[in-house]
Amino acid sequence: MPALSTDLATLHTGRHLSLVRRGHWEFATRHGATGVVGLVAVTEDAKMVLVEQARPPLGKQVIELPAGLAGDIAGEESESLITAARRELLEETGYDAQEVKLLTEGPSSAGLTDEMISFFLMTGLTKTSAGGGDASEDILVHEVPLTQMPEWLEERRQAGWAIDPKIYVGLFWIEHNSAVIG
Amino acid sequence: MPALSTDLATLHTGRHLSLVRRGHWEFATRHGATGVVGLVAVTEDAKMVLVEQARPPLGKQVIELPAGLAGDIAGEESESLITAARRELLEETGYDAQEVKLLTEGPSSAGLTDEMISFFLMTGLTKTSAGGGDASEDILVHEVPLTQMPEWLEERRQAGWAIDPKIYVGLFWIEHNSAVIG
Repeated sequence: MPALSTDLATLHTGRHLSLVRRGHWEFATRHGATGVVGLVAVTEDAKMVLVEQARPPLGKQVIELPAGLAGDIAGEESESLITAARRELLEETGYDAQEVKLLTEGPSSAGLTDEMISFFLMTGLTKTSAGGGDASEDILVHEVPLTQMPEWLEERRQAGWAIDPKIYVGLFWIEHNSAVIG
Repeated sequence: MPALSTDLATLHTGRHLSLVRRGHWEFATRHGATGVVGLVAVTEDAKMVLVEQARPPLGKQVIELPAGLAGDIAGEESESLITAARRELLEETGYDAQEVKLLTEGPSSAGLTDEMISFFLMTGLTKTSAGGGDASEDILVHEVPLTQMPEWLEERRQAGWAIDPKIYVGLFWIEHNSAVIG
């Protein structure tokens, strides 16, 4: 591995993000969270559970995996990624997951941020509330049959929604996971 | 769609990135580029072409799709995404692509940045140079049989490499694209 610069400097500290420089390289880093979870949630009748919300950075509606931060709640800074995965799925979609399994994890944009996302497969789902997110969120829930997924996403993309590519990460893992596809 | 705040402010302007606030939401935005391309490159003998490089934000080696910025070269600010896709594949991997096809596009991390990635399928590949990136880059090229891909990636992830999840986006599209899988 080529040597990475140890010259680190914080250029600006915001409330939620900081802009950092390492050598000549600038990137964004989050504070107040220990990880990010992306949830590949599949119902008993083979539907994928997705969420839709307005995203201020993009200025448009985005269809994406249910997702959220771990350790971002005061008093719960040490929650595990699995605990965060179950909490976020419940908050956003109203589904309680009996089985939670780590699929993979990796950087969301390796040139721009140190953010890493952990993808969890969420199955054994029971609907226990309406979902929709916490008090600051306004989240729509979509349940889409796996057999219709690529076409459903592509239709919406062409109609103006932004489609988070991480949904395709989830679909790949669903198709290659014997626990889901039997 | 709920109303998105029109209260925009730049918190810090770096050389390559700025930290921006929209209402209460902070995010990172790039300057000096018109887009980001992620390249799903498949050789005639069914190998996927991947790159590996040290990424300063993560401080480790990352295996990822060949990728790069469009419009980031002085005098070439108006290059198309397709031109950037062919140029970046050649620079990073030494492969010239005869066919270039847009697969999908979407946000890399919709809560953290306005960055959008356009995924292109690159086929009809001819090796014309060694690759390895431009003068500022130090890139290793991997060519991995599609049949070995999930296992190859997972072995490396468990051995300490970071694996960019966008590789799985590429694999999903390869498996669902009749031009590739026949």
